[in-house]
Amino acid sequence: MFHHQKVLQYPAKPDKPDALFAKQMQEILGGQYGEISVALQYLFQGWSARGEEKYKDLIMDTATEEIGHVEMIATMIARLLEGAPVNEQEEAAQNPVIGAILGGMNPQHAIVAGLGPRPTDSNGVPWNAGYIIASGNMLADMRANINAESQGRLQVARLYEMTEDKGVRDMLSFLLARDSMHQNQWIAAARELEEKNGIIVPGSFPKELEADNFSHSLINFSEGEESKEGSWANGTAPDGGTFKYEEAPTAHGEKQELNPAPEYMYPK
Amino acid sequence: MFHHQKVLQYPAKPDKPDALFAKQMQEILGGQYGEISVALQYLFQGWSARGEEKYKDLIMDTATEEIGHVEMIATMIARLLEGAPVNEQEEAAQNPVIGAILGGMNPQHAIVAGLGPRPTDSNGVPWNAGYIIASGNMLADMRANINAESQGRLQVARLYEMTEDKGVRDMLSFLLARDSMHQNQWIAAARELEEKNGIIVPGSFPKELEADNFSHSLINFSEGEESKEGSWANGTAPDGGTFKYEEAPTAHGEKQELNPAPEYMYPK
Amino acid sequence: MFHHQKVLQYPAKPDKPDALFAKQMQEILGGQYGEISVALQYLFQGWSARGEEKYKDLIMDTATEEIGHVEMIATMIARLLEGAPVNEQEEAAQNPVIGAILGGMNPQHAIVAGLGPRPTDSNGVPWNAGYIIASGNMLADMRANINAESQGRLQVARLYEMTEDKGVRDMLSFLLARDSMHQNQWIAAARELEEKNGIIVPGSFPKELEADNFSHSLINFSEGEESKEGSWANGTAPDGGTFKYEEAPTAHGEKQELNPAPEYMYPK
Amino acid sequence: MFHHQKVLQYPAKPDKPDALFAKQMQEILGGQYGEISVALQYLFQGWSARGEEKYKDLIMDTATEEIGHVEMIATMIARLLEGAPVNEQEEAAQNPVIGAILGGMNPQHAIVAGLGPRPTDSNGVPWNAGYIIASGNMLADMRANINAESQGRLQVARLYEMTEDKGVRDMLSFLLARDSMHQNQWIAAARELEEKNGIIVPGSFPKELEADNFSHSLINFSEGEESKEGSWANGTAPDGGTFKYEEAPTAHGEKQELNPAPEYMYPK
Amino acid sequence: MFHHQKVLQYPAKPDKPDALFAKQMQEILGGQYGEISVALQYLFQGWSARGEEKYKDLIMDTATEEIGHVEMIATMIARLLEGAPVNEQEEAAQNPVIGAILGGMNPQHAIVAGLGPRPTDSNGVPWNAGYIIASGNMLADMRANINAESQGRLQVARLYEMTEDKGVRDMLSFLLARDSMHQNQWIAAARELEEKNGIIVPGSFPKELEADNFSHSLINFSEGEESKEGSWANGTAPDGGTFKYEEAPTAHGEKQELNPAPEYMYPK
Amino acid sequence: MFHHQKVLQYPAKPDKPDALFAKQMQEILGGQYGEISVALQYLFQGWSARGEEKYKDLIMDTATEEIGHVEMIATMIARLLEGAPVNEQEEAAQNPVIGAILGGMNPQHAIVAGLGPRPTDSNGVPWNAGYIIASGNMLADMRANINAESQGRLQVARLYEMTEDKGVRDMLSFLLARDSMHQNQWIAAARELEEKNGIIVPGSFPKELEADNFSHSLINFSEGEESKEGSWANGTAPDGGTFKYEEAPTAHGEKQELNPAPEYMYPK
Repeated sequence: MFHHQKVLQYPAKPDKPDALFAKQMQEILGGQYGEISVALQYLFQGWSARGEEKYKDLIMDTATEEIGHVEMIATMIARLLEGAPVNEQEEAAQNPVIGAILGGMNPQHAIVAGLGPRPTDSNGVPWNAGYIIASGNMLADMRANINAESQGRLQVARLYEMTEDKGVRDMLSFLLARDSMHQNQWIAAARELEEKNGIIVPGSFPKELEADNFSHSLINFSEGEESKEGSWANGTAPDGGTFKYEEAPTAHGEKQELNPAPEYMYPK
Repeated sequence: MFHHQKVLQYPAKPDKPDALFAKQMQEILGGQYGEISVALQYLFQGWSARGEEKYKDLIMDTATEEIGHVEMIATMIARLLEGAPVNEQEEAAQNPVIGAILGGMNPQHAIVAGLGPRPTDSNGVPWNAGYIIASGNMLADMRANINAESQGRLQVARLYEMTEDKGVRDMLSFLLARDSMHQNQWIAAARELEEKNGIIVPGSFPKELEADNFSHSLINFSEGEESKEGSWANGTAPDGGTFKYEEAPTAHGEKQELNPAPEYMYPK
Repeated sequence: MFHHQKVLQYPAKPDKPDALFAKQMQEILGGQYGEISVALQYLFQGWSARGEEKYKDLIMDTATEEIGHVEMIATMIARLLEGAPVNEQEEAAQNPVIGAILGGMNPQHAIVAGLGPRPTDSNGVPWNAGYIIASGNMLADMRANINAESQGRLQVARLYEMTEDKGVRDMLSFLLARDSMHQNQWIAAARELEEKNGIIVPGSFPKELEADNFSHSLINFSEGEESKEGSWANGTAPDGGTFKYEEAPTAHGEKQELNPAPEYMYPK
Repeated sequence: MFHHQKVLQYPAKPDKPDALFAKQMQEILGGQYGEISVALQYLFQGWSARGEEKYKDLIMDTATEEIGHVEMIATMIARLLEGAPVNEQEEAAQNPVIGAILGGMNPQHAIVAGLGPRPTDSNGVPWNAGYIIASGNMLADMRANINAESQGRLQVARLYEMTEDKGVRDMLSFLLARDSMHQNQWIAAARELEEKNGIIVPGSFPKELEADNFSHSLINFSEGEESKEGSWANGTAPDGGTFKYEEAPTAHGEKQELNPAPEYMYPK
Repeated sequence: MFHHQKVLQYPAKPDKPDALFAKQMQEILGGQYGEISVALQYLFQGWSARGEEKYKDLIMDTATEEIGHVEMIATMIARLLEGAPVNEQEEAAQNPVIGAILGGMNPQHAIVAGLGPRPTDSNGVPWNAGYIIASGNMLADMRANINAESQGRLQVARLYEMTEDKGVRDMLSFLLARDSMHQNQWIAAARELEEKNGIIVPGSFPKELEADNFSHSLINFSEGEESKEGSWANGTAPDGGTFKYEEAPTAHGEKQELNPAPEYMYPK
Repeated sequence: MFHHQKVLQYPAKPDKPDALFAKQMQEILGGQYGEISVALQYLFQGWSARGEEKYKDLIMDTATEEIGHVEMIATMIARLLEGAPVNEQEEAAQNPVIGAILGGMNPQHAIVAGLGPRPTDSNGVPWNAGYIIASGNMLADMRANINAESQGRLQVARLYEMTEDKGVRDMLSFLLARDSMHQNQWIAAARELEEKNGIIVPGSFPKELEADNFSHSLINFSEGEESKEGSWANGTAPDGGTFKYEEAPTAHGEKQELNPAPEYMYPK
């Protein structure tokens, strides 16, 4: 069960409106790695957690925080849209700055949302749950989370470069910090789990059922041998095995051929 | 540029057809973490790589292999579908085993594909490119790849439990092994990059622009303090900072309020 | 069965082309509340209607009209796109007005449709049937229709502000009128049904099976008590009950905990 | 900013597992009118509200409650999935009851989520933000909310019929009650707003700009005159106008014809 | 503008209900090549047609007919769903036939639509406009139409095999006939246009701007030379050129390499 | 199994960067008829082919080539994006050319991909597998392929008009040529198959089961008789029958009416 507090976790006040940046900022609200993604991913992971309580609690702490980040960014976008000159066609015809705003802004910000945020990415594609994962395997999910916070912080960093508004940058500096923490915490949790369950997910699958002569070979499917020099082709692998390099792929299977289709499927 | 060899990388021959398992196996073909996802994710990462050649080559080696895994699973599904009794309604009415197959199988396997594989997940949802990422940041992408191979191997392990067909299990044992290798290699590559660029992505964002008093705090947004006991709330964080635990969240911002909408947006 | 008459229900002639407005107008063609949505929603409702004939006939009257509205807007967009300067890169480099059109217009209007309308919203997202509902409950569907016509008319009103083209505005003034009628008619129909079946959908669900001590309480989950002052927290509710206000939420359930996962699901 | 309390708002305990009902119950979790939809719709409406505080507070109260309903249903689904016999192929071959479960259950419940809930509808289609609306017009949004709670309660009522599990039915009886309240409250709020702004959304659009001779006519586009007898074709309309009935549609426009395409669009 | 006649174009009466077949039949209603696809594809093509009137008229004749086919199939599905035993869990536990129906039917047919048709495919994926095309090039669109009617008729033929209900088969025999006609007519129209504009779309693109030494070569990218023996590798090509066969692909380009990314994109 | 060669099939070097054209070019990478579509469509067709080897080999030759075309276009887009002025807000405020680029470019090219290509269309909508078909009927699939190459070449031709960059145009001239070849080859293969199996797909469905009095009639559903004059309404049809023209549609069916819904579906 949740409770809502009306003061934001951190200020979300731009120095001045900027309808084009409002469009760009949608990416970290409703994009693949936006705040809706992490909020819902963590909620589903937390609600599905079937193991040790401390992981579940950590996940729910973070999930709950992230709903508040959705709120902050939604608020920032609404404020960036204030006064957008959507009805100033005549001015736009004479003033190329206004013209560029009208041509470049997200039309749904005006038509659909009346100058509010949208649950979409920066191109207007609606958020969908295909972006998220809650797998029922804690280490797998920690890795999903490390990935999400890495991509998310990267996008925030790029947005930081794409504006000079001090208010916007202040909020982004906070998000950068929280994404640092979240990378830190998921990495720490993953390391704990790797120590317990091994480096390969899922750790409990019986090794003897795996075709393990294929478990440590880098196979050279792409012309060039630069990859041969990496730490992934020589020496000890993270799971303790020994990396090998195969100079050319071998086809172990049979020809890709199928039996004829039955007549009732109308192949002709 | 690519070349195609007709013999499969590994055998993809079931002992006998099984239309229900063909439906389930679609998950690792066209699901969120199926082989289409890793193939296209790695291709886009490889083609977008703007840095050191050895990473690009490693990615292209793996990407190219994965197209061949799509091929193997597509082949297996086609073979599992052979002879599916889709036109045996009368038999089905009397034989509950046939009835269960007709009721449970993916109707598109017959109607749309004429007993062939579909580019969808196990529920028939078409694969879409919102599943993948190529970010232009090598460490971020390595983490996406570790995640993808972890989720992917987990799903293969579960499918292994859901069939007793020796031919299917043989192919799955190979995929499990390759997913082990791919986890190993992406982890090895990520470790290299972390040593160079730091543990937090992106490593090159200036630390002084981050609100760093928020970079190491676990905030207790969810009732219960189990999370306080984890390695993520005490001691040294992966990036070298010191974890803190905040017993209760603080609201640093202002009230979530917006200015009135202009009349031309018709708020009333 | 349908018949098509070639003259449009109302003129769809812009005074002059405007490729940017063509992009914006897509919202009321193929957006969430565009004309494709209402046409197909009403068609499916009409075809699924299992009750009194007069509702079914009303729905089919309106559904059929709406296909003609899709036609009008599609026509308007095609005409707004005439002569779009998509091959005038050189001019664009010198003339910022042409440059803004090339940068701001929907690229698919040229590349995919050859200067025709698209079955998408104003950001180019394809229309999908997840926007619509035909529930088999007449009052529920009337409410879906009141909502659709309200959102639709709102969007048309906003578009009216975003152009000064007299021909476009003339067509929009017609659509505004029809949306007024459609709001009027669905409200009238809903009132009839509410009188028969009660205000709460579905009216026929036995009241005694509902946990009715929770049916009239506004619970204060969000800080602040402004909501306490509304007509929804005091006095008689629309269904005849008495509204209550709970100052703080009560948790009636058990702790959100799950049993451990079985080993064959590989939780580790 | 949000806070999370671990005890559920209401019990979510089935009497016994039922993997097939877990699949069906997904509809009210991640379907078009499931709890994710109302939670996110209300959050976006609340965060975008630019008017009177009491509406915003009401919306945020309800939004926050709905996140807790997502939690309850997610929990129920996880519990319904416990012990699902996904690895019992041999038993299934002999026991048609187990066979029916294996054939009928959602394969992603096992393969992807390890016996946890999924952010999808009952057919496995991921939730997407195209289901929701936050329009910036309070009355329009109240109507969206009345619709959502009506469809939602209807679906819960149908699910109630589709199970005989007492624990499941107990939770559904609570959801039915809360949906009753939410219908009540949105209707009350809508009535307030209609009194202030008029029955037609948006109320502030100048009537004189609407082609008002078309604002009260039911036009008989579909064979049969049953619709002529309804309250929507006679007497006073909800907005105070007088309904008219047109026995046959009139085409007021011009022929649907376009000018030829320019050669650079390659029409040939 | 459209008019609706209440009698169906052809009978849509099953001999008896069959909820499983109702699910399968959804494919030709709301699937990739279902009737919604052809109806909307032809409507958009007709409304976008900028050339000779006779093509536009042909397209609009067919488009209008197809809306009536959507109506027929929607009606058939509604009738197949009548009396579906969705509330007979107890019977289902004892009667495997009822159990199979409950496990195999589309849950949304009951929960969402109250035993009505859905605008989705046979797996419940909503129809979307990404299935259709209206390109502004008449020959290209005729080819899209030939394809759509070929896939559509194939699916109808397969469904014919999957039922033994005489009423259903009677309607399918009509759809098979209309799909034959539509294949015939689009082929006839395409031949006319090919005679005027040439076999290659678009015919008006200047041949001298094409790298025409690559316009007639089959390149052997896939191991094996079976393709060398086809009519596509020898003799005169449909456009009058001469087919060539290249035994091995040649790479004419440069190495796939990119310049380094700028620092402000945070590649590290 | 596949192998990768690092030199591109054809040069993909623009004369100079152009972030706006990079956005437009996405259409032929990740749009409905972009190279991802043809690559994956042909792969699935090839892997599903259950008949004569020469068709399968032809398809796999072409499929493999198309993966290389995805590579070329991805490379071109990455190069067009080099140096995009995404962090030059100040300059943009003064220089309308830079302003137009910032407003018009795809924000995800910077924020998500760090100046790399995206697996989306020109509006940023992710590619999805609903675009493709592999039907298990060779002639149906050849027609899908003819259509895909026709739409694809049309889009390339339009893009050719929309740029004046010699390097870009050079690559497009190559793609135009390959699309010519692919149209040629699929047409040649289709003609072979039509000779064997007849012009109507599927050819093997028994003619006597089709309601063949409807197989050759053009029915005049749309006002106007221009369509009567076409080759599709007179003389011999492609399948050998004789075209007829019906001046007005006949309704052969019954009224579109349904039985009442059962109470347990809550129609009220």
